[in-house]
Amino acid sequence: MVNDKYDVIVIGGGPAGIISAVTARKYYPDKSILLIKSVKKGVIPCGIPYMFNSLKNPEDNALGNAPLEKNKVDIMVDEVVKVLRKVKSIKTKGGKTLKYEKLVLAMGSNPILPPIKGLDKKIVFPIYKDMDYLKDLKEKLAEAKNIVIIGGGFIGVEFADEFSNIKGKNVSLVEMFPYLLLNSFDVEFGEMVMSKLEAKGVKLLLSRKVEEVLDSGARLSDGETIPADMVILGIGASPNTKLAEKSGLDIGRGKGIWVDEYMRTADPDVFAVGDCVGKRDFFTRKNLPVMLASTATAEARVAGANLFKLKVVRENKGTIAIYSTYVDGLALGSAGLTESTAKSEGFEVEVGLAEAPDKHPAALPGTSKIKLKLIFSKQSGIILGGQVAGGISAGEIINIIGMAIQKRVSATELETLQLATHPYLTAPPTMYPLVLAAQDAVGRI
Amino acid sequence: MVNDKYDVIVIGGGPAGIISAVTARKYYPDKSILLIKSVKKGVIPCGIPYMFNSLKNPEDNALGNAPLEKNKVDIMVDEVVKVLRKVKSIKTKGGKTLKYEKLVLAMGSNPILPPIKGLDKKIVFPIYKDMDYLKDLKEKLAEAKNIVIIGGGFIGVEFADEFSNIKGKNVSLVEMFPYLLLNSFDVEFGEMVMSKLEAKGVKLLLSRKVEEVLDSGARLSDGETIPADMVILGIGASPNTKLAEKSGLDIGRGKGIWVDEYMRTADPDVFAVGDCVGKRDFFTRKNLPVMLASTATAEARVAGANLFKLKVVRENKGTIAIYSTYVDGLALGSAGLTESTAKSEGFEVEVGLAEAPDKHPAALPGTSKIKLKLIFSKQSGIILGGQVAGGISAGEIINIIGMAIQKRVSATELETLQLATHPYLTAPPTMYPLVLAAQDAVGRI
Repeated sequence: MVNDKYDVIVIGGGPAGIISAVTARKYYPDKSILLIKSVKKGVIPCGIPYMFNSLKNPEDNALGNAPLEKNKVDIMVDEVVKVLRKVKSIKTKGGKTLKYEKLVLAMGSNPILPPIKGLDKKIVFPIYKDMDYLKDLKEKLAEAKNIVIIGGGFIGVEFADEFSNIKGKNVSLVEMFPYLLLNSFDVEFGEMVMSKLEAKGVKLLLSRKVEEVLDSGARLSDGETIPADMVILGIGASPNTKLAEKSGLDIGRGKGIWVDEYMRTADPDVFAVGDCVGKRDFFTRKNLPVMLASTATAEARVAGANLFKLKVVRENKGTIAIYSTYVDGLALGSAGLTESTAKSEGFEVEVGLAEAPDKHPAALPGTSKIKLKLIFSKQSGIILGGQVAGGISAGEIINIIGMAIQKRVSATELETLQLATHPYLTAPPTMYPLVLAAQDAVGRI
Repeated sequence: MVNDKYDVIVIGGGPAGIISAVTARKYYPDKSILLIKSVKKGVIPCGIPYMFNSLKNPEDNALGNAPLEKNKVDIMVDEVVKVLRKVKSIKTKGGKTLKYEKLVLAMGSNPILPPIKGLDKKIVFPIYKDMDYLKDLKEKLAEAKNIVIIGGGFIGVEFADEFSNIKGKNVSLVEMFPYLLLNSFDVEFGEMVMSKLEAKGVKLLLSRKVEEVLDSGARLSDGETIPADMVILGIGASPNTKLAEKSGLDIGRGKGIWVDEYMRTADPDVFAVGDCVGKRDFFTRKNLPVMLASTATAEARVAGANLFKLKVVRENKGTIAIYSTYVDGLALGSAGLTESTAKSEGFEVEVGLAEAPDKHPAALPGTSKIKLKLIFSKQSGIILGGQVAGGISAGEIINIIGMAIQKRVSATELETLQLATHPYLTAPPTMYPLVLAAQDAVGRI
């Protein structure tokens, strides 16, 4: 089935790899394309927390081969161990040597293993994007009573929310900082999540670290030992650059592979996309350690289109941190810089705040409160970031803010933005929160 | 309570008037401001259809005085019958003469009374934005069995949806064109609404007009007579420009009051905002008959800030049609030009289509399908419009599209847009519908 020569070889079976291959097919219908993945059956990364209770069947979160097959992309399960760039070929663990015209590196990231003693204990589980591994984890979860989650970022928070929905589980969340989600939200938003989780019975162990995992417990930095039948590592991930380093490709100032505006590495025939690539912040050009499927797929579309010719002039203007999450009915989103990050980067900022119902009048059944914060450059009035909490629709409100950031919209533009409003769908036109928050900031700019 | 001289007088108590007054207060804290309204208790315009069943109490949809009182805006219930611009004063029906420094006209619109015989029958009800009138209508509705709604635009569709939720009502909707919502949606979206309403038992009488209202029925243009205990006029509205015309102000090429970029009429001391003002289309500069609270409030913010000085350079770049509606669980939004309007305006267009689940994986409970259409200028690739149908989040997705239109975003920019995605909140990153639709169009541009 697999040939020994392809026009395009993509290494990596996650969203970045898949979208690179599919986009390449779209732009280059006549090229032969191969995707090599190391895991037989992958999973949709952001759906992982929901495989344990929300989804009836973990297989519902499988990352299937259908889009690849539909786009006539050959598939091989193997691990690439070497890239011989001079002769444009790769070698696999399975002993294959394949030649390429264009290579796309989409090897993703590896879970960070923090310097904690006892990580080799049987009760410790990093989160791998591997269906069989996660199914096994779900089975083990059924027998666990005391679950300790390490890390109060997105992964930790979403696992804590999901696990605490299962009857009979005691869930503890350990975070070294005094707030949750501190990487992407200002503290007032983190506090909303903390209240939600505490109300569900999740034990928040803040300003503490796990120092050692024991056979059936975890010893914290304050000396306390808590019982644990299962320890989940939700610390984050680091770019998987091993193959790129071995192949003599530049690793940027951050820890990811260096790429140009069109996702080309220093070698014009080798592209790189997704978690394994270094990101430059949209505002500062500094390294931005963002690893998200949405960022990865945006990069993959740039790479896929531009493999053989820069067919359409595009650019990667830099990466914005743009996320959303959902905790016990509360949707939260963050885009761009937080107030605290903006200040620590040296920006002079003005903040605009607003609260409004997400339906109108607020007496309509099912109305939630939207809380919104926008961060502007004080002098220039340009939007630097925003955060929102509310009902389901907050998940798309953050994408309005994301668009505003990417188009460098000013507070006065936002203040007079034309909007669609409807009783069942949005805040009232008189107090649409994006407009109110911009107006609030303009008053002080 | 009311003085005989004000720095700012606002005529009109709807959203445009209220937001003009509130914004003026924000920018000019020391000025005296009076708002004159002709109806004692107004209502939130877009909430009107939901006063009959969704809201327990019609009073929940009242447009209260609280924001005015909080902002120290005096209120007077009276009708202004004359503006004496040379001496900068107004005369009211109640016999008052008041002087102003700056005047804001926000008189709104009047329901269109179509050329139908028998509109004076007791069973005929235009929709006025008046709490007492609507409460009375609700009482009469309780006794009506056969209800005929004339007009298949937003008002008619939302009334038909709401009334058909009440047990024992036979609801018919008469529309002269063969599709519903034809002003703002292409036919494939109108068809979705038609299916929804028909499934609820609403009788759609398309490609027909009501020729005459009888004592207890309506005679249609095809000769059929249908029983009616109540006839609702949902035809639309026309700008209320009577006072402006009497005052010698320019009425533009459309039917509304002419204003400049800062909402000033030909008289620099008289501003006008909202439904009574002529709109210029964002793309063509032609008259655009859009009358929405969201447009009105955006204009009011421009006027309110710039009454005494153009304090902040702003502009009204022209109006986009941007709406949303909600029919029996299906949310729909439209922004900018539809495919058919764009073509009839002479644009060479390329269309991009996409479908995706609004959660991911789609097996998550409560997942709806999003259907999205984007319209681009074929040669320049700039977005001209978009339409979306789906779950609740479609109500904010249309505002992402609205932002893209107002910032003249191109298809290639949308294709690589950075987005927040989350299993419970959005489509998957691999098939985010805005990106997919842009990609679909780019393939043909």
